[in-house]
Amino acid sequence: MRNVTKDTVSDAFMSYCSEETSPRLRFVLERLTHHLHSFAREVELTHEEWAKGIELLTRAGEITDNERNEFILFSDLLGMSSLVDMIHSPEGATSSSVLGPFHIPGAPELPVGGDMIGDNTGQPVVLSGRVTNKAGEGLGDAKVEIWQTADNGLYSNQDPKQSAFNLRARFAVAADGGYCLSTIKPETYTVPDDGPGGDMLKATGREPWRPAHLHVIVSAPGHRTLVTELFPADDPYLDEDPVFGVREDLIIDMAPDADRAALPSNLAARDAIQGPFAAIEFDFVLAPE
Amino acid sequence: MRNVTKDTVSDAFMSYCSEETSPRLRFVLERLTHHLHSFAREVELTHEEWAKGIELLTRAGEITDNERNEFILFSDLLGMSSLVDMIHSPEGATSSSVLGPFHIPGAPELPVGGDMIGDNTGQPVVLSGRVTNKAGEGLGDAKVEIWQTADNGLYSNQDPKQSAFNLRARFAVAADGGYCLSTIKPETYTVPDDGPGGDMLKATGREPWRPAHLHVIVSAPGHRTLVTELFPADDPYLDEDPVFGVREDLIIDMAPDADRAALPSNLAARDAIQGPFAAIEFDFVLAPE
Repeated sequence: MRNVTKDTVSDAFMSYCSEETSPRLRFVLERLTHHLHSFAREVELTHEEWAKGIELLTRAGEITDNERNEFILFSDLLGMSSLVDMIHSPEGATSSSVLGPFHIPGAPELPVGGDMIGDNTGQPVVLSGRVTNKAGEGLGDAKVEIWQTADNGLYSNQDPKQSAFNLRARFAVAADGGYCLSTIKPETYTVPDDGPGGDMLKATGREPWRPAHLHVIVSAPGHRTLVTELFPADDPYLDEDPVFGVREDLIIDMAPDADRAALPSNLAARDAIQGPFAAIEFDFVLAPE
Repeated sequence: MRNVTKDTVSDAFMSYCSEETSPRLRFVLERLTHHLHSFAREVELTHEEWAKGIELLTRAGEITDNERNEFILFSDLLGMSSLVDMIHSPEGATSSSVLGPFHIPGAPELPVGGDMIGDNTGQPVVLSGRVTNKAGEGLGDAKVEIWQTADNGLYSNQDPKQSAFNLRARFAVAADGGYCLSTIKPETYTVPDDGPGGDMLKATGREPWRPAHLHVIVSAPGHRTLVTELFPADDPYLDEDPVFGVREDLIIDMAPDADRAALPSNLAARDAIQGPFAAIEFDFVLAPE
């Protein structure tokens, strides 16, 4: 096409895609260019703004390495990561939330009632409940994996003072789907804000602080793996999570007001827990595969 | 907002932007997220496709350096660079086209009738005409800058065998806006296709060959600088330029059928040009600033 105009460039793009292109790729590219072109036309994007966009992407590339991916951060901060989660979140199951960049495979396996507190300081939290299918039937072959920050707001892979798998474990459940574990209340922390993603937050007056959360992956054969987060109800950032991960059903009261009588009998840390602690019941509901 | 859904994430994003955000930035971000989110919802973007997108951007970052910017290439191949040009292309002036990545500032200044051929081999092209405003009045203080590939398809900054400013010059014009110069016919070449941009071309069956072109920048005080390209009419890739740069008014007949009588009297290379050559009249029309 030799007479491309601002109104025909989207058609020109698609006319260049060969008929052998996979139908899914054609569809994705057609919608992507439609929306990119509409965006540029609607805002009458200037050469200077285009150059600024290229500069942001170039800087994101420079700051990205094996430990940190600024493109994922941009996707998080623009709501894209959460949106992809929500698009595929099945009805009637526990809400999913973002995986985040701090997951490490290979966490130690612990039995029902296992303890993650170990030598960590912080407010103890006893978490128990059931893993069920949508009909409420317990899934005895489920696993509940948890990872979280220590009380300095750092994950083990950000903090040389923590052992590799500190505050990371994969718990078995009982035959009726019941799980039970002890950990500490997670601490709030900021997304990395010293790169172009942080520049966007600053330019729009947004906070880099994420509400504190426990990361959770719940899996069971024959069921869709649930990647989610649990948030303490008293966190001040619940209403402005920079990565859009908060869902109402994932907010739980972690106030340290539980009675020692509430400590489950199968809790490994039953005697070690002293002073105020929270005891939370939370059921995870998985959708079929 | 703690109850973000796939239908409210765009509103949540804007609700997080503070009132002090610059109105233009608010508008650009509102339209950008609207279109990104609409794209993801309409195609029901999967986690795997999202991860593929992140991988493409990450690889683009890895391949980008001072000499090559894969984000600009993606912008070019998606039609965004040309679209930004076209959005701001003034009516009634010569069409603009992409600047491309091979421009170097500081090209030597040559008088009216100056020669760029020098030691280069290739088909001679004599280019002349006028630089005018939209009323057709000659602009005697204009400059016409040209850069192009040698007959091996390489620019001087891609080819250690060429001198730094080979086939690059900035020409003065006469008092009536008349310009005149001699060069060679440009050769076709491919965009860099060994990175993720090239992967997109291959996945969609697109050619990496750009139609051959002369790059031109025409400037004059009080007028908008024209960044454009001139394309030989016999090029086989005119209808599938991977960067969407071709406009009908920029295609010119460079067939070597000119008569020696057509050689302008003020042409420095008048005696050096032997054998078949093209003589082209082309007027550049500039819009006011």
